[in-house]
Amino acid sequence: MKIRLYNARILTMQQDEEIFHGEVWIYGERIVYVGDGTDTEEVCNRNNTIGKIWDREIDCQGNLLMPGFKDVHTHSGMTLLRSYADDLPLHDWLNKQIFPVEAKMTGEDIRILTKLAILEYLTSGITAIGDMYLTPHTIAEACKEMGMRCVIIGTLNNYVQSVKLQEECILRYREDDPLLSFIPGIHAEYTCSKELLKDMAELVHTYKTPVFTHLSETEKEVRECQERYGMTPVAFLEQMGLFDYGGAGHHCVYVTKEDMQILARKGVSAVTNPASNLKLASGVAPITELWKAGVNIAIGTDGPASNNCLDMFREMFLVTGLAKMREHDAAAVKAGEVLQMATVNGAKALQLADVDVLAEGKLADMIMIDLHQPNMQPLQNIANNVVYSGSKQNVKMTMIHGKILYENGIFSVGEEPEAIYAQVYKIQKRITG
Amino acid sequence: MKIRLYNARILTMQQDEEIFHGEVWIYGERIVYVGDGTDTEEVCNRNNTIGKIWDREIDCQGNLLMPGFKDVHTHSGMTLLRSYADDLPLHDWLNKQIFPVEAKMTGEDIRILTKLAILEYLTSGITAIGDMYLTPHTIAEACKEMGMRCVIIGTLNNYVQSVKLQEECILRYREDDPLLSFIPGIHAEYTCSKELLKDMAELVHTYKTPVFTHLSETEKEVRECQERYGMTPVAFLEQMGLFDYGGAGHHCVYVTKEDMQILARKGVSAVTNPASNLKLASGVAPITELWKAGVNIAIGTDGPASNNCLDMFREMFLVTGLAKMREHDAAAVKAGEVLQMATVNGAKALQLADVDVLAEGKLADMIMIDLHQPNMQPLQNIANNVVYSGSKQNVKMTMIHGKILYENGIFSVGEEPEAIYAQVYKIQKRITG
Repeated sequence: MKIRLYNARILTMQQDEEIFHGEVWIYGERIVYVGDGTDTEEVCNRNNTIGKIWDREIDCQGNLLMPGFKDVHTHSGMTLLRSYADDLPLHDWLNKQIFPVEAKMTGEDIRILTKLAILEYLTSGITAIGDMYLTPHTIAEACKEMGMRCVIIGTLNNYVQSVKLQEECILRYREDDPLLSFIPGIHAEYTCSKELLKDMAELVHTYKTPVFTHLSETEKEVRECQERYGMTPVAFLEQMGLFDYGGAGHHCVYVTKEDMQILARKGVSAVTNPASNLKLASGVAPITELWKAGVNIAIGTDGPASNNCLDMFREMFLVTGLAKMREHDAAAVKAGEVLQMATVNGAKALQLADVDVLAEGKLADMIMIDLHQPNMQPLQNIANNVVYSGSKQNVKMTMIHGKILYENGIFSVGEEPEAIYAQVYKIQKRITG
Repeated sequence: MKIRLYNARILTMQQDEEIFHGEVWIYGERIVYVGDGTDTEEVCNRNNTIGKIWDREIDCQGNLLMPGFKDVHTHSGMTLLRSYADDLPLHDWLNKQIFPVEAKMTGEDIRILTKLAILEYLTSGITAIGDMYLTPHTIAEACKEMGMRCVIIGTLNNYVQSVKLQEECILRYREDDPLLSFIPGIHAEYTCSKELLKDMAELVHTYKTPVFTHLSETEKEVRECQERYGMTPVAFLEQMGLFDYGGAGHHCVYVTKEDMQILARKGVSAVTNPASNLKLASGVAPITELWKAGVNIAIGTDGPASNNCLDMFREMFLVTGLAKMREHDAAAVKAGEVLQMATVNGAKALQLADVDVLAEGKLADMIMIDLHQPNMQPLQNIANNVVYSGSKQNVKMTMIHGKILYENGIFSVGEEPEAIYAQVYKIQKRITG
């Protein structure tokens, strides 16, 4: 498809670039033009594969085009557990409610449950996810069927997955589909034996790959790791060689100054999940300090069992709101910094350099924010409006890999939402009903 | 209009009543039937003014009908200041940015700016507001023009409004319009001289009226009051006799155990504004303790300059999420309690006994929540879904006083949103542009 989106406000998220009025051209899966529209003749002349014949021209009516949000830490298949076991402490919640239900879920269940999550990502302008869940291949199927960009994240521990599976996935998803990639992951230090971590470190070195993991989410986790190994989880995993090619730590609520230095030095991103950390009473991550330490901070929703929704607008407000509260400083973490975390830094964490900003040659992962809704008026500072006032209601269009998957409330994902809900209902009846 | 809404899930918010499947009938501004639909013949026979001839029948498609949200503390006219002066500490923000701009605003400006806010309330399922702002009469005009239910709140201080104006408003809005009422208010202890508070207390006793005020929002405010009067703001205002007929305190972030006892004893509601308290780095209100002390807790968005949006879904999540964090207890403040604060308790605080729940004889202030959106699936626990996963995107219909003012994204408020935006733009150009 050749699509021209014109009469738009554009926030490319390229460094220090202000919002401007212009247009974006898509050829297939790539952006071939982003600009104010005055130099399009020149562009066509310079590159004779580019012309002005369109499959579709979209008048953006002054609305905002920007890169899609990257939800770097989620567990899509946990849609089954939305509102199933709320208001419980993390460790009880995980051991008594979540793990027993997960034990009953099949790969096919997870394929369907992931589809439900994908519908919601699209409503929230999320164009790429880092999905850490049990069955990589059926997550992959769901994403391919619906057109979702996904970095499948391993979630090895003593009970599920294996180092062999991680390796198999590394090889398979190098080539399987342009929407998919794989990064090995361990669920967390506290669910993996030292032997398992050693084997994993070997894999990391063989493939020179980053590793993702839940990291220092609760005080209990850090305390127990210190009792076990005399080190924080960050220091321990580094010592094991797991961070030698970077990676990402999810949550990072209880990280020390030394931990932050390790994360910065090793190129390990901190993925903050503020809604989940509130709902499970885990705490508030030290975003300002991580930022100052030079750590790449990205944002995740976490899974719908612990959040309970997949809404980057809520997360963005919380990232800055909680930092302001924590630092007793209303100037902490400005709106522009939050947008950077939600887009560019997220792409960096997920190793998706091709979808970070809107620019010629990049993949077309883009959203349109409806500025004609009352919560976006007046247009005094549009970026601040998005972070402080935005909601799912403002997502007018979500495009992934050049395809419009969601537009004006209608999904184009090859299946009707109600059909997916009906399949989820059957799973729910069987497992939790 | 006679409207029948059928095939609905219904959450009446009457004590301990579960969600059930049924229908709601509206005659004019009142609800004449709420039930499962099996006893409608009997209802018609019993009351011969009720029949089955409808102006409109709405198939709710299994969506949820519930009472509208009550936004008990807001400053609608501050839409002008959305994203105008973000990321500043409260007192600088108020004195250096907000007050100077407000000095340039006319009553006519506020009428228009309030209309912009009303559009947003409707998108968020807010059916009644406690609007504390500078020019009561032009707030009243805006609400009447658009059909918004509003309790206009006085905001007396040393610089704006007067006790005489409060009295005039008490008398005028007893009768002016069924959508409107008035409760006198003082901006805050720290902006009123003792003499002014004495005069206000006299008014309170003459009219046996509750009083609303900003109350113990920041540590600075409490400290300075203690320096001035040797008492907390709560204790001082009580001693002045201002709470002798109840009222409401907005924010209540820094209240002592003794303060809580005063609030409970005097029937003063605590109106929590969690998003504003985060954004201005004020702190986190002790919701669990206030609840245990027996204080009526309601929820407000605060004005769009300090929030920056008018979104009860965000506030609801924050009320419970922040309480969980503050108490280090994921079981703190359950979803059902939050819904009670956002509806029944809000109505109580605003002295609007007729719009608290869905029941025969009550005024028809009601919303429809779209359960066919992915963030509401599966339907494991619908009330929890609303609180933990809900967003403006789920508001399918907002009805006030029996009139549908917002439905499927379309406003029916006598004016097009774009026309209001254009008027706001002119004000913005003149004042802040």
